[in-house]
Order: sequence, then C-alpha cells, then structure tokens
Amino acid sequence: MKYIDSINNKLIRQTIALYSRHERDKKDLFVLEGERLISELRDTELIEYVIISESYNGYCPDTGNIYLTSNLIFDKLSDTVNPQGILAVCRKLSYDVHSAFTAEAPLFVVLENVQDPGNLGTVIRTADAAGFNGVFLSKGTVDLYNPKVVRSTMGSMFHLPIYTNVNIEHLINDFKRYNVQTLAAHLGGAGTPYECNMKKATAIFIGNEGSGLTPETATMTDRLVRIPMPGKAESINASIAAGILIYEAVRQRLEG
Amino acid sequence: MKYIDSINNKLIRQTIALYSRHERDKKDLFVLEGERLISELRDTELIEYVIISESYNGYCPDTGNIYLTSNLIFDKLSDTVNPQGILAVCRKLSYDVHSAFTAEAPLFVVLENVQDPGNLGTVIRTADAAGFNGVFLSKGTVDLYNPKVVRSTMGSMFHLPIYTNVNIEHLINDFKRYNVQTLAAHLGGAGTPYECNMKKATAIFIGNEGSGLTPETATMTDRLVRIPMPGKAESINASIAAGILIYEAVRQRLEG
Repeated sequence: MKYIDSINNKLIRQTIALYSRHERDKKDLFVLEGERLISELRDTELIEYVIISESYNGYCPDTGNIYLTSNLIFDKLSDTVNPQGILAVCRKLSYDVHSAFTAEAPLFVVLENVQDPGNLGTVIRTADAAGFNGVFLSKGTVDLYNPKVVRSTMGSMFHLPIYTNVNIEHLINDFKRYNVQTLAAHLGGAGTPYECNMKKATAIFIGNEGSGLTPETATMTDRLVRIPMPGKAESINASIAAGILIYEAVRQRLEG
Repeated sequence: MKYIDSINNKLIRQTIALYSRHERDKKDLFVLEGERLISELRDTELIEYVIISESYNGYCPDTGNIYLTSNLIFDKLSDTVNPQGILAVCRKLSYDVHSAFTAEAPLFVVLENVQDPGNLGTVIRTADAAGFNGVFLSKGTVDLYNPKVVRSTMGSMFHLPIYTNVNIEHLINDFKRYNVQTLAAHLGGAGTPYECNMKKATAIFIGNEGSGLTPETATMTDRLVRIPMPGKAESINASIAAGILIYEAVRQRLEG
C-alpha cells in the first residue's frame, strides 16, 4: 500500500478533478465513495484505484492499487459531510443495448432531460426495486456519475443496465422494432395509467421537472397518460410520477 | 412603503433569525419566499410583513406592511441561489384536528420521524395532488416550516391541513375512535398494498428514511404492508413509498 502525504499529489488532484462532468467524460472515470456503495460494485475489475484514510477500518475491495492518506487529505477529497474514509475511482459502466430487449415482456424507464440528481438516483433505485430491465437517460439528463446521483441510487446503479446519452428518437424506433409499447406521463394525457396494459413489454417515459416531455417525444410515443390529480396540486414530482407508473406495472403483473 | 438600508436593521435580523427552527417555534412565524409560493397563500391575513428588493416587479400581496430593500441586502436574506426578490414573514398555519375526521371515508398520510426536507415536501405535494384530507407529522419529523420543505411543497402546504408535532399514540387512538384503518409501509409487512381496501377511511403510515417506523408504532397500526420488490434493491425511498400507497388509494377509488 502506497502512502500519499500531499494534497498536491497527482492522483489526489486527478481524483478531485473527477467532480467535474467534463473531466469524467474525458477520462471515462468516476468516483464511488463509501463502504456500502463500493461493496455493491460486484465487478471489482472496474476499479482503477482505491484511496482510504488512516482511520478507515471497514471493507476494502481486493484490488492492487490501494493508496492510504491522512484523514485531513481524505476529507478534502470527499464529497460528503461525514466521510467514511474510502473511495474508489472506477471506469464507467457500459451495457449492450440490444441485450436489454431480449427479455420476455421487458419493462423500461426512459428519462428525458431530468435535471435533479436526487430524482435520477431515486428513479433508478425504484426501477431496480421493481425488477425493471433497464433505464435510459437522454443526452440532456443530469450525469449518472454525478456524486449526488451515485449516492442516491444506493447501489442500484450496479443492479440493472443504465444507458446514458441516449438519442430518444433512435430509442423509440428501437422500441417499435421490438414491440415495446411507449407510455409517457403527460399533463395533457387522455387516459390514466390504470387503463394501460403493462403486462406487455412497456417503456415508461418521464420528462423534465419543470417543462415535462419535449413535444417531439410526446408526439412519438404510443400513448400519453395522465396521473389523476383529484386534489389541488397542478403537478407531482418527476420521481413520484415515475414511481407511480413503475409500480402500476408491478401491480398488474402480480395480478397474474 | 418603508425603505430598509442596513443589514443591521431589526426587521432584517429578525427575518434571518427565522432560518433557525428554534426561532420559528418561539415566534410562531416562518419565511415564505418567491412569487409563486406567496401567491398560493390565499389567506393574506397570515402575513406579518413582506420584504421586496428594488428590482422586483412581480405580484405583491395586498398587505399594509411592505418593506423595500436593496438587491444586495435581499440576497443576504434569501435562502435561494437566484432570489426572485420577494419574501413574506407569516404566522404558522393551524387546523382543527377533529374537523379532518368528519369527511366521508377520509384519506390521511402520517409521517413518523421523516428527516429529509425534500421527502416531506414531496409527500405533502403528492397527498395534495391525490386529494387527501390531511397530513400528520410526528414530533420527530423535520420542521414543516424549514425553507427547503416549504419550497418543495410547491404551495401544497396551503391546500390541505397539515398537523405538526403530533403524538402518534394519541393519533392512532383517534383513528380507532373514528373508524379510520391504519396501514403502515413496512419491510416486514405480510401483504401488499394491493390487497388492502382503501375505499374505506384510511391512514397511511411512513417511517424514517433509514430505520422505518418505530416498533411501537408498527405494533399499534392495524396492518403492516410490504411494497413488493421483485428486483435487487432492498428498500425504496420514503417519499416514493408514500407515493405508491397514496396512489393505490386513488386507483381503487377511481374503480368506483
């Protein structure tokens, strides 16, 4: 194990730089922080290096590149208020898109231009809990590897394929080719989610928090559905809308 | 309209102090910031005073106490990154508990020790959208008047009664007396939410993000329900769990 004693060390500077999306995209790397998240990463081959603080004494993956540093330097590296003392710099995940379509009656979520890191992480966690087959993120969606997103997925980002930088038009063409129906949550939708048969292969589309789906995407999907709002609020949070639609699919499939 | 030209002005200092829960509790006041939220407050009698910045030119409630200040001082008062230039200091809301029980087959949400301001705000917004009759917050729940909670309710906190500092044991006794069934989201629950008849008067209980419901509360409720998780995640976000249960009630009642 190598010891790093300076904040100016090249590896430390390189790790801090990964808090910028530009740098993550350039290097194809991201920071995974905390014992629980790192232990969820089954494929330790994705790890480039691990940095731990002097006082850390929890789980550490079995990888060759482990660096030790002072608590003071670790605190400067960390994105959290109470650092646990372990982070791993990993290569980004990648998945073959077409393998996702081969499951029987698969279920997908597609997020278009969702901006809030907490919403993205929460939707991934919900899709994972519900046993969905994959999540697609449009080009304009917040970065999957943003530390806040990574944290709020609670490890679910390693449990199901997540496709990033997706061109929505091409994706909808793929869905048509594979007979996956496309349902979009939309305030102007005609029917409710409860009227849709989600026992069939289904992709659920959720748009941006403020402006919803783009008109182009709304036009291309098979059906716009409106979550009923008998009360006074004019809209609901994007991750809640996703959760309601995701679990309507779970409910229908439990019915048998 | 009076002009405030110093950050040391008594009213400015008093307003800044309201960012502390202790001060909000002592004075029974809170800060409501932004044009949209202030315009949602139908009862302008709750407003003690309004502060606007020199460059603000949006809606302003018709109240006697309006103060104007510089953009620089307003920015220091604001809790947001891009202040709109208007805030109102208001008296807290209060509701008669028993009036809530008189509706026909009412629906309620009860939050026990929920800590994340975004979760609380989102649950209130969802309960409002779904036309619920009220939300109860246990003593240990994050303060309703925390500026992040207020913002994330998107105005819904003014649309339905929200009862704060609730003693859960007393509340459950009230529910029994009024024949309101109590359903608690619980990882140890036996049935699914889809097996519960929510056409009846129902209160949905959601616990703390990390530890769930307290064992005492879990024991007192009529039924523990488990949201099915056929996937790999071990739990879902508290506000998503609330959203799924809230909308299961909406779905059942739409069935007629």
